[in-house]
Amino acid sequence: MTTGRVEAFSDGVIAVAITLLVLDLRVPKASEHQALSHALAAQWPNYLAYVVSFLTIGVIWINHHAMLHRLERVDYSVLALNVLLLLTVVALPFSTALMAEYLTEPAGGHLAAFVYGGSFLLMALTFFVMQRHLLLRRTTLLKQQLDDRARRRLLRRNAAGLVPYAAATATAVLSQYVTVAICAAVAIFYALPSVSRDPS
Amino acid sequence: MTTGRVEAFSDGVIAVAITLLVLDLRVPKASEHQALSHALAAQWPNYLAYVVSFLTIGVIWINHHAMLHRLERVDYSVLALNVLLLLTVVALPFSTALMAEYLTEPAGGHLAAFVYGGSFLLMALTFFVMQRHLLLRRTTLLKQQLDDRARRRLLRRNAAGLVPYAAATATAVLSQYVTVAICAAVAIFYALPSVSRDPS
Amino acid sequence: MTTGRVEAFSDGVIAVAITLLVLDLRVPKASEHQALSHALAAQWPNYLAYVVSFLTIGVIWINHHAMLHRLERVDYSVLALNVLLLLTVVALPFSTALMAEYLTEPAGGHLAAFVYGGSFLLMALTFFVMQRHLLLRRTTLLKQQLDDRARRRLLRRNAAGLVPYAAATATAVLSQYVTVAICAAVAIFYALPSVSRDPS
Amino acid sequence: MTTGRVEAFSDGVIAVAITLLVLDLRVPKASEHQALSHALAAQWPNYLAYVVSFLTIGVIWINHHAMLHRLERVDYSVLALNVLLLLTVVALPFSTALMAEYLTEPAGGHLAAFVYGGSFLLMALTFFVMQRHLLLRRTTLLKQQLDDRARRRLLRRNAAGLVPYAAATATAVLSQYVTVAICAAVAIFYALPSVSRDPS
Repeated sequence: MTTGRVEAFSDGVIAVAITLLVLDLRVPKASEHQALSHALAAQWPNYLAYVVSFLTIGVIWINHHAMLHRLERVDYSVLALNVLLLLTVVALPFSTALMAEYLTEPAGGHLAAFVYGGSFLLMALTFFVMQRHLLLRRTTLLKQQLDDRARRRLLRRNAAGLVPYAAATATAVLSQYVTVAICAAVAIFYALPSVSRDPS
Repeated sequence: MTTGRVEAFSDGVIAVAITLLVLDLRVPKASEHQALSHALAAQWPNYLAYVVSFLTIGVIWINHHAMLHRLERVDYSVLALNVLLLLTVVALPFSTALMAEYLTEPAGGHLAAFVYGGSFLLMALTFFVMQRHLLLRRTTLLKQQLDDRARRRLLRRNAAGLVPYAAATATAVLSQYVTVAICAAVAIFYALPSVSRDPS
Repeated sequence: MTTGRVEAFSDGVIAVAITLLVLDLRVPKASEHQALSHALAAQWPNYLAYVVSFLTIGVIWINHHAMLHRLERVDYSVLALNVLLLLTVVALPFSTALMAEYLTEPAGGHLAAFVYGGSFLLMALTFFVMQRHLLLRRTTLLKQQLDDRARRRLLRRNAAGLVPYAAATATAVLSQYVTVAICAAVAIFYALPSVSRDPS
Repeated sequence: MTTGRVEAFSDGVIAVAITLLVLDLRVPKASEHQALSHALAAQWPNYLAYVVSFLTIGVIWINHHAMLHRLERVDYSVLALNVLLLLTVVALPFSTALMAEYLTEPAGGHLAAFVYGGSFLLMALTFFVMQRHLLLRRTTLLKQQLDDRARRRLLRRNAAGLVPYAAATATAVLSQYVTVAICAAVAIFYALPSVSRDPS
């Protein structure tokens, strides 16, 4: 099987998931007691969550693009792992909405941030497992063979990507704001167009 | 007509349908009386439903991919049957939400599971009808002719796929949990990447 | 400009619009006073609306596919007309939900059916205008020139497609059920795979 | 990297964003005190917002199409800028819903229109930055080199496109209706198929 339709399906799923993030930007109800300006300002966690998750999913897409680009063709195991990866990506609008809703709540804020960081960690982990499967166990599917060093460098870079998300998840116990700050830093770091970098 | 745009449209529809499943993961309202942790835990049927239906639609996509891949071109009858198949796929987020909502309800749980199993059965049945149409009545559309034995083997495998969904639908009368267990088993069986298997 | 990306964008928009129809299949609230079975049965206008609109949008897609397939390339006027056509297609989930909600209401049912039929008529009209533009005023964009007779036959068939929707819209004054019956008949007629027919 | 998958992903995201606009066309509740006809008529800001934003996003897509069409391949900076551009496009259904909700409100209407105009301005600005990046700093990615004059003409045209949106945003202080009128005029001007014009 060629990679064309896996790319098309994955593009579609990721495109819908990234766009559904807008559904969590809600039109607030202004009232006699609260002007629209205040009602809009009070939603700042939603805007923050929108930007951080949008950039993160955008970067996932770039990396997914690069991962499949290395393949000449796919087999059933690749399709199945890809479905698992997409399952973790599609769940992100949920964890994003949860984080936005509870970020400023004393009770619940820690747990919501834990789920938020954890959903990114799970996604990065599944990505790593798929990359590893392709580079170590399905080398015959690759367009061009990579030597051991290139392969290990790529996997090390992917594994390194797990660290900030693990940290973000763990620090949720201390403060939900640290969790979000780490996730935001990662998103901005990778989405900065001026940084010259190869996608992984 | 070539198969390109049918694949693109089907990819799009299946991608949206699979992603809409996330809309049934709702941000719960924590309260003085219920911590967020309990509110999140109480939604376990929704997480279960999300995973089972996501994997199932993912596997449908893989099989749909394989089915169209055998074709050189399509005619009007293929396009129309494909629309019917997509109609059954797009309904799955509804039956999934219904099942998740009523799984633990004594009244309603049986019916919800019946609709859930039945919606998978209907989808698998439409898939079988389309496959049969292609293999027996539109052989001129195939990229390469299959001999009688290969054709019958493929159809037998597709027909066998109906059995667990028929069982899941029927057992809803006894217990909604059996229905969901069967659907989950099928989804996990096909989505396990380690199992070497050809898509049907 | 080649037709590739117009097709991809149109496929995407139509795929999302057709899938959003499922959002109008809602999980009903069963209660002590109403069993789930009754609550589900009471939603029959929604199931009817889902099937009729799904098949209709499916057939639009098939015809849109055929219309663009005749083109070698597109110019700005084609892109702009295509955006207008998509605008009418994307509005259909709204008119569908409106019809489903008010079908059985004595007051409101006529108007809802009028809007429903009218939205199909508007879509078919825009399709006709675009087809006419391509066949009469942008003949240089066609892959192969059609003679006058073929062109007129195609346009006549498209114009004929307007008649049932005009009738469905007009009869809404008499009975909303007639409107829906006509729309359903058109959808089933075109979606019947056994009917041998060229898309227009 | 070739441009194929960037186009596919962008098409997907823009297609979902443009289609989500329909979610703001809500089925109104008729009551004893208000006929459906009045309830539907009262929603005129929503229909207006739907048409204006649909045409605007449609024109963005056409221009995005043209911008990427000039490229032979893309690098990481292009992918990252494209994610930023999509981030501004996906936010438009939110600002559209906000404008529709508050257009006729004395309090809130100005701010809502300011956000509406501002969201278009932000999108146009990001588009301009991306175009500028491609034409001035990534000329090696272009399919064919443009001379300085052609490049400056293109950028001047893009910069000119910022003016009406800046005006629309600024005039929100005076009247929300002027803001919407300007946005509508721009959308209709570009979407008029009879106007012969090259996309930018």
